[in-house]
Amino acid sequence: MPKVVDREEQRRRIGAALLRLVAERGLDEVSVRTVAAASGRSPGAVQKYFRTKEDMLTFAAELAGERIEQRMAGVSTALPLREALRALVLTTLPVDAERRAEATVQLAFAVHAAHHPRLAAIRRQVDQEIRQALAAWLASAGHESHATAVADAVIAVSDGLALRMLYAPQEHEQLLTALDRALNALVPGPGSRAEPSLGGTAPDENGS
Amino acid sequence: MPKVVDREEQRRRIGAALLRLVAERGLDEVSVRTVAAASGRSPGAVQKYFRTKEDMLTFAAELAGERIEQRMAGVSTALPLREALRALVLTTLPVDAERRAEATVQLAFAVHAAHHPRLAAIRRQVDQEIRQALAAWLASAGHESHATAVADAVIAVSDGLALRMLYAPQEHEQLLTALDRALNALVPGPGSRAEPSLGGTAPDENGS
Repeated sequence: MPKVVDREEQRRRIGAALLRLVAERGLDEVSVRTVAAASGRSPGAVQKYFRTKEDMLTFAAELAGERIEQRMAGVSTALPLREALRALVLTTLPVDAERRAEATVQLAFAVHAAHHPRLAAIRRQVDQEIRQALAAWLASAGHESHATAVADAVIAVSDGLALRMLYAPQEHEQLLTALDRALNALVPGPGSRAEPSLGGTAPDENGS
Repeated sequence: MPKVVDREEQRRRIGAALLRLVAERGLDEVSVRTVAAASGRSPGAVQKYFRTKEDMLTFAAELAGERIEQRMAGVSTALPLREALRALVLTTLPVDAERRAEATVQLAFAVHAAHHPRLAAIRRQVDQEIRQALAAWLASAGHESHATAVADAVIAVSDGLALRMLYAPQEHEQLLTALDRALNALVPGPGSRAEPSLGGTAPDENGS
């Protein structure tokens, strides 16, 4: 038993090193050799845990998916719906170093998945879980109508803004204004432009 | 003079071969060697036109940007605003082989730009032109309020949906429903859920 636990722990450490490498240098820099260096191991030691680069990437994508679920679970559903959605999207936007690393990894894996069926299957599974959770959340807050389509639209806005923020950090503020505009439009209600917010932390409405 | 023209033409042909390669196999497969093979040249011949991989990618990103501008120019502004916006976004979504190739290239370059300042500058310039064109379009159709933020939100939805469609082709229909939901919400007016459409080609409203 201790050996099994240790093996899983070693795989997780190598996976975490791979995610840091992608965040810092991009997915095209990942190889058994670079991941070995980043995790302080020999190439042979890495190959003891992952036979191919594809194996490493698949495991790292699963790790990244776990992180998304943890972040989603960390957003308080006690917040008004639109503020909760905003908080959720903000956890995925590259507005600080940690979230930038995470967004870089997610988007690099997403693009890579276009050519790699195993990664695509993991992404679709994660998307599916987020879609269902968001749709249930919208429905329970009285937005039953088109809940799935609204959930998919929120995911799309989130991914699209994250992508642009990665290479346009100087436009962060303008893009956060666009986020508020999209959420106001997709989830009208208390806190939207037409009605004053009930809470004290509604997004700034002074967009261009 | 003929030599200069020929040189530019050769660069464009190599750039086009690079774009095809990215579309088919992903950005991580691009090298002087693979681009040479894809364009029917020797590695030495490619390096006569591009000294580094970075030079090739930069030129190819400019070519891809030109294509976006051509597509935008091809959408009739005589259409009702929301239908025109829908047509515009559809030109960027990977719903057939040609658009899939184009979207793969665009998104691969966008993610790559996170680590490559020259590519980032090209992307920001293209985004800026699209943002301004969309905002002017929205304003001229009576949507002056928040035109820039709405334009950025439409760009984000478009990029986010394209990304997801790349690895989830089986969800295209559901994601097109999300597009209609987002456009209806962001650009309310004739054709939106509250009012019957004036035209005969309004998007299907029966989202889940």
